[in-house]
Amino acid sequence: MAENIAVVLHGPYDLKVEEYPIPIINDDEVLIKVSCVGICGSDIRIYTTARCGMESITEPLIMGHEGAGVIVKVGANVTNLRPGDRIAIEPTQPCRSCEFCRSGRYNICEEPRYCSTHGSPGNLCTYYKHVADFCHKIPDNVSMEEGAAVQPLAIAIHACNRAGIKLGTNVVILGAGPIGVLCAMTAKAMGADKVLITDLVESRLKTAHKLGADYTLLVNEKYSDQQQVEKIVEILGTTPNVTIEACGSTSAQRVAMMVTRTGGTVLIVGIGEETAELPLSNAMLREVNIIGAFHLLNSYPAALSAVSNRKIDLKSLITHHFPIHKAKDAIELAKTGKAMKVIIHVDQ
Amino acid sequence: MAENIAVVLHGPYDLKVEEYPIPIINDDEVLIKVSCVGICGSDIRIYTTARCGMESITEPLIMGHEGAGVIVKVGANVTNLRPGDRIAIEPTQPCRSCEFCRSGRYNICEEPRYCSTHGSPGNLCTYYKHVADFCHKIPDNVSMEEGAAVQPLAIAIHACNRAGIKLGTNVVILGAGPIGVLCAMTAKAMGADKVLITDLVESRLKTAHKLGADYTLLVNEKYSDQQQVEKIVEILGTTPNVTIEACGSTSAQRVAMMVTRTGGTVLIVGIGEETAELPLSNAMLREVNIIGAFHLLNSYPAALSAVSNRKIDLKSLITHHFPIHKAKDAIELAKTGKAMKVIIHVDQ
Amino acid sequence: MAENIAVVLHGPYDLKVEEYPIPIINDDEVLIKVSCVGICGSDIRIYTTARCGMESITEPLIMGHEGAGVIVKVGANVTNLRPGDRIAIEPTQPCRSCEFCRSGRYNICEEPRYCSTHGSPGNLCTYYKHVADFCHKIPDNVSMEEGAAVQPLAIAIHACNRAGIKLGTNVVILGAGPIGVLCAMTAKAMGADKVLITDLVESRLKTAHKLGADYTLLVNEKYSDQQQVEKIVEILGTTPNVTIEACGSTSAQRVAMMVTRTGGTVLIVGIGEETAELPLSNAMLREVNIIGAFHLLNSYPAALSAVSNRKIDLKSLITHHFPIHKAKDAIELAKTGKAMKVIIHVDQ
Amino acid sequence: MAENIAVVLHGPYDLKVEEYPIPIINDDEVLIKVSCVGICGSDIRIYTTARCGMESITEPLIMGHEGAGVIVKVGANVTNLRPGDRIAIEPTQPCRSCEFCRSGRYNICEEPRYCSTHGSPGNLCTYYKHVADFCHKIPDNVSMEEGAAVQPLAIAIHACNRAGIKLGTNVVILGAGPIGVLCAMTAKAMGADKVLITDLVESRLKTAHKLGADYTLLVNEKYSDQQQVEKIVEILGTTPNVTIEACGSTSAQRVAMMVTRTGGTVLIVGIGEETAELPLSNAMLREVNIIGAFHLLNSYPAALSAVSNRKIDLKSLITHHFPIHKAKDAIELAKTGKAMKVIIHVDQ
Repeated sequence: MAENIAVVLHGPYDLKVEEYPIPIINDDEVLIKVSCVGICGSDIRIYTTARCGMESITEPLIMGHEGAGVIVKVGANVTNLRPGDRIAIEPTQPCRSCEFCRSGRYNICEEPRYCSTHGSPGNLCTYYKHVADFCHKIPDNVSMEEGAAVQPLAIAIHACNRAGIKLGTNVVILGAGPIGVLCAMTAKAMGADKVLITDLVESRLKTAHKLGADYTLLVNEKYSDQQQVEKIVEILGTTPNVTIEACGSTSAQRVAMMVTRTGGTVLIVGIGEETAELPLSNAMLREVNIIGAFHLLNSYPAALSAVSNRKIDLKSLITHHFPIHKAKDAIELAKTGKAMKVIIHVDQ
Repeated sequence: MAENIAVVLHGPYDLKVEEYPIPIINDDEVLIKVSCVGICGSDIRIYTTARCGMESITEPLIMGHEGAGVIVKVGANVTNLRPGDRIAIEPTQPCRSCEFCRSGRYNICEEPRYCSTHGSPGNLCTYYKHVADFCHKIPDNVSMEEGAAVQPLAIAIHACNRAGIKLGTNVVILGAGPIGVLCAMTAKAMGADKVLITDLVESRLKTAHKLGADYTLLVNEKYSDQQQVEKIVEILGTTPNVTIEACGSTSAQRVAMMVTRTGGTVLIVGIGEETAELPLSNAMLREVNIIGAFHLLNSYPAALSAVSNRKIDLKSLITHHFPIHKAKDAIELAKTGKAMKVIIHVDQ
Repeated sequence: MAENIAVVLHGPYDLKVEEYPIPIINDDEVLIKVSCVGICGSDIRIYTTARCGMESITEPLIMGHEGAGVIVKVGANVTNLRPGDRIAIEPTQPCRSCEFCRSGRYNICEEPRYCSTHGSPGNLCTYYKHVADFCHKIPDNVSMEEGAAVQPLAIAIHACNRAGIKLGTNVVILGAGPIGVLCAMTAKAMGADKVLITDLVESRLKTAHKLGADYTLLVNEKYSDQQQVEKIVEILGTTPNVTIEACGSTSAQRVAMMVTRTGGTVLIVGIGEETAELPLSNAMLREVNIIGAFHLLNSYPAALSAVSNRKIDLKSLITHHFPIHKAKDAIELAKTGKAMKVIIHVDQ
Repeated sequence: MAENIAVVLHGPYDLKVEEYPIPIINDDEVLIKVSCVGICGSDIRIYTTARCGMESITEPLIMGHEGAGVIVKVGANVTNLRPGDRIAIEPTQPCRSCEFCRSGRYNICEEPRYCSTHGSPGNLCTYYKHVADFCHKIPDNVSMEEGAAVQPLAIAIHACNRAGIKLGTNVVILGAGPIGVLCAMTAKAMGADKVLITDLVESRLKTAHKLGADYTLLVNEKYSDQQQVEKIVEILGTTPNVTIEACGSTSAQRVAMMVTRTGGTVLIVGIGEETAELPLSNAMLREVNIIGAFHLLNSYPAALSAVSNRKIDLKSLITHHFPIHKAKDAIELAKTGKAMKVIIHVDQ
């Protein structure tokens, strides 16, 4: 083992590639030589604000939460993994003890130790340690970079599970960023009938269409909410059973509540404004449920098998590659919104 | 059979007691001699605005949708009822054919023919006809006026079913009108642990406490949303798993989203403003589901058995009585908010 | 309009092609000129025994319940269909009034008037009448024979819905008859990870594999239940989350209870013996749910859209074709088990 | 701290009261001075057979899994408990890592370390150690012996949760032992309409009736299954939505499948024979779900609050008391079936 290089945030936009000690594992943990780490919207938020949720970071923070690598060492109690295993890192280490963990909702754990938030180090570094049972073996026919990109797919699967998508469901997705596009792909893999996706950027819609969305709507910022609703219904030919809000805009929240079919579901996965002016009553009177999805829950296995099965084509989602010492460039590119999924190759 | 006296709305506040022809039943219908009709908030809205939802009435409309009476005649196909049967009238006649009816959600039927809305006559009249299978036999130990008051109880049961209340659930109810109080009673009957109810009016809270709420909070209009949240948590000793918004105020919608425990449910049964400034994101990030309950669904049988069983004490909810020719006085009293449940005795 | 030719059962194996009067429709009904009717296992049971469930037929019975055709006439109240529309016939006319219909479970309606059972005529005839809302428009890119075969697909979808199949579920199906194979196809369309199907007949397994099953197991009648369990786990590489029993044998019921993963589901769609010696306790102690699926429920729309979408390839399931006057030959062929799906062309 | 006295099984019927070392706790554990331990059917099975499930014990085993006591020491990481706290011991220490634990079903954990099974010591001893988060604080108005008896109540709650009992459900319970009676009490607390309970022993039915069952049926061993079904329906006045099999007899399993209402649920909590001749098809064709309940799941909090609330009267269930040195007499009495709930007072 050589050195451990980490991408560390010291303050807004203040990112350094530094050497760190190699972590010491305990009996339930494994040490991972990281291969690839994807960049997502929350990385950009942390990078630009140096904040996790409402709090500013007080210590330098290692970035990264979409990681995959190779096991190099296992703790004394670890039976399911061996050195050499290729694994995807589910980026949380829940407490396993709070009421949420005990009832199978560890994604809303009270003390989650989530990679690269609230003092927990991320995995954008050469050597990273993690609890063994939150490392998932990558099938032989899945690449390391796909293994890293499984994390946002697992988020999309959790969102689509919460939304109750099944065979024949008509789905509208508002926002064609990586999560929106992955929701479209997941919805189709779950048997959705028609999937329409909207965005402000034409190129994202093209990718979404190529990867599985049946219909796209380019939203013009001048459209009123009502106009968006009308265009969606016109293109889809009906109102959707499920609408997934995957961009966080208040207008999208409103459109979701208005356009969803009576008795259907609005699923919110985008992170919106603190408060918003919303047509809640209309949705409530039509028994449209409004449901959030936070992080991911028990969806790594389904994600990895769907990629291995070729039900989900993650490769086509990955558009850009950077070596670890260009991590800042990678995050800056992601920030422009021009890339779909950016992968940092830690071992390069 | 003698004459058919009906309480008819001709325009805002323009209520007349008039003679109407006795309805002619078809093969699936029964003719009912109405005994009692309760008055609720939606009657007041119709009475003061002459509007159903967004539309003004264009024809005189017979009022009333909380009715009970005695069968006097049955159609050729009716097998479950006989003349002399005492029945509570479930006030809808759904289409039985739309996707919602076919999937067991007739409360959101596309063409529901709901009593006293959109041209369907109400049952505040001597003789009323209805489809036989939406008439429910009243157990011998349940009075006619309880039979009428079963309708709002069935609404509360639907709301509590949708909210997922079960043994041990902690519940907060915002609004101690009849529906709020009935939700408190229903929640306790379903095994809720602690139930706290809030209102602006002290006397309503007293009734709520007497009928089953464990705790009450008198809300002062000067309280901020955050102050309400804090007081609720202080009194309840914890955050609620379920919050039922039963008053329709925007502030209550906000408090509900803020106070509900992570992973819990906000159930909206009050009819709120068209749009409202709401802290949606916080609820979504904590996977607090926001669910509406509209009318009632398959809850008459449970309501009638709960009254018959003495799990639910409807009698104590009924505070005022009027004969039919004083229907206007009855509605005016209900409008003051000083009464809990007002019953009009049609046969007096 | 010319004559109405019907395939009529008079007693066991006593099938006649006869002329019948053209049905008179009422206001909610449509008259259909039937194009295609599929043959299934229950037709064979009726044909060979002249019994529906426990009762013998007392009157001649028109056969057929997997039908598709063209609307030729609509009743006065029918708004969703017009003459010329191509439709698939959902073969039930539930009462819409019993507790099951009202709660969205019309498949277990107390008085269902199901095609070709208990005195209700089937649709293996030139002109057939049906309630309009149980006729489903066939998309333009779906053929009439596929429209007929949508009925068993809709049964498979109901079974897979009840079984809770979703993205990543591992599924074992016992029995590769039409329903078993359609369950395999449906499970894959719902996102199942691995699907293994078993049968006693090699050729059925080949079809199943071609149409979507990942793995097959040819069961030898000499295998013990335990041997079947071991072979299934060996091939699948794990225990299944869901096992679908689609052949009705007692051994298959036992294997299903034994092989299903702890916490999983056994779904019974095959019709088994009246009683059977079963290892129930082991399943119960492992919280393996045992669930039946009867007929179909609200699954025609999903079935038709899945065929139209090419998620489900019904064409490849259809193996044999007969004109109506050779209906007896068609049923005799189906009885041999050598055909997958046999279609009778009524208009030939 | 003085000595640690334990009730230890060395072989069938070979029970000794012996001194054991006081356990050493780790950072996540607490040391408990045990006050009361209840005796249940599974204790009797272990006592008479010296077997846990299919395996014989190979080492002496400390008995007891229905315990309550006082915290005397807490590990370094324990924040929720302090010395002096009165707690009920949820008798499992699941792995928190297998797929079942992670999805909130720790009762079917692959490596559960359940008290007094498979080598895990029980709590029928003076000093017992346990993981802190599976110790639940006992409310001030709940006694220690009730705290011990919360364990079978939590089992009954889990069973009733799995059965889906809610307001208005009609319930039949087969078997009036402690679990059957607690299911009756729980069903009523959840809002069940009518509860009928059956048993072979009149005295148990009297207790059941006193504690909440509306109706009882004394089963004569000569009754056929069909006769039992008929008598149940006659007394209940209808078929039950839910039938709970709480005695483990094959006849009860059959009666449960036959008597349950179409679309309802059979819940199996009794431990039956390895195989049994069962009328499965009839239940499956009527979409009656057959569901097992194993141990308990997240039901201690609801159990403790229901006892504290006086929704559930555990005191009346407790019929006999013994000091620890008479543990053998206590178990022998429980074995006769004449006692309802026997409590061993460890501190006497």
